[in-house]
Amino acid sequence: MAKGEETRGVILHQGVETAYKVGLGGLTIGELARTTGLSKSGLFAHFRSKESLQLQVLARAREEFVDLVLRPAVQAPRGEQRVRALFENWLYSGVHRTAGVCLYVKALNEFEEQTGAVRDQLLQGHRDLYDSICQIFRTAVSEGQFRADADPMQFAYELNGLLLAAYNWVRIVDPADAELRARTAFNTLLDAARA
Amino acid sequence: MAKGEETRGVILHQGVETAYKVGLGGLTIGELARTTGLSKSGLFAHFRSKESLQLQVLARAREEFVDLVLRPAVQAPRGEQRVRALFENWLYSGVHRTAGVCLYVKALNEFEEQTGAVRDQLLQGHRDLYDSICQIFRTAVSEGQFRADADPMQFAYELNGLLLAAYNWVRIVDPADAELRARTAFNTLLDAARA
Repeated sequence: MAKGEETRGVILHQGVETAYKVGLGGLTIGELARTTGLSKSGLFAHFRSKESLQLQVLARAREEFVDLVLRPAVQAPRGEQRVRALFENWLYSGVHRTAGVCLYVKALNEFEEQTGAVRDQLLQGHRDLYDSICQIFRTAVSEGQFRADADPMQFAYELNGLLLAAYNWVRIVDPADAELRARTAFNTLLDAARA
Repeated sequence: MAKGEETRGVILHQGVETAYKVGLGGLTIGELARTTGLSKSGLFAHFRSKESLQLQVLARAREEFVDLVLRPAVQAPRGEQRVRALFENWLYSGVHRTAGVCLYVKALNEFEEQTGAVRDQLLQGHRDLYDSICQIFRTAVSEGQFRADADPMQFAYELNGLLLAAYNWVRIVDPADAELRARTAFNTLLDAARA
């Protein structure tokens, strides 16, 4: 990897961390200069505008979501094991507040009432994520572990719901109880899908 | 109701609407002056600080949540009907983006990584909300409709999850599909709790 690419990755990751803390809407070139110690003029030369920075940070968060949740799940054997790996990776990132994964989910709430390129990219990214969950679910159907008439998108919907609940529960109650309740809900969901 | 109280209610409701759109963190006295057409100095004399304004707007959102979701549910007969009324009221407010209900849920995401009085009030409010859901659930247990060993807090957790998913689904797919998927998930949840 070229030096420039590496630096760029470090800056964008810092952007993800900062946006997770202050909100993607609060991520300005000035704020990023403060948290990276780089010059505002240098960052401005690179990113040109606040929106361009937000879009690139969002794209980076999506890559981190894929790297931490989806890609390692796909390395698990097809079927229920892969579905469970997806759930466990996502839950771990939510409970431990991994910035890329959490920003990707939180930013939707922040931008859903707005218009513009950031919201559009967020919605499209979430649609792609649901498609990926459906694909992973279907491997368990084709392995004969899940019912052929189970609805993959309904599964994706409910899986997302129990993970969103876990995310809030970490603060409302505590992380250990959040994990416990999420696993209970997930096992109920799997039982309902089983052949 | 005295004239002063009425005016105060109108201002706070406008604060809820504004905070829902720009985020509770973006709700300043200046922003509220802009959306109400009232003078900044008059509002400042009333609210004193941004944090005091945020806390009062949050308290107002909580009252609106109670008025729109919890209180009408408690007027339904005890048991499954009351649980269903709770779900339907909450779903309606989420799908139709009723500002008080939506702000109350969204602000948690916005403030959960922060410290201070706004976050503390939000977390306490959510704990109280879960207690209310548990109480409503227990009326169905005592009516013999739900299993005596069903866990009310697990039910509250999963109910919250499917409603959070519906909230996002309105934008990711569309409102009609969000309602459909939320009802499917809710019926599965009820079936699992039934005696």
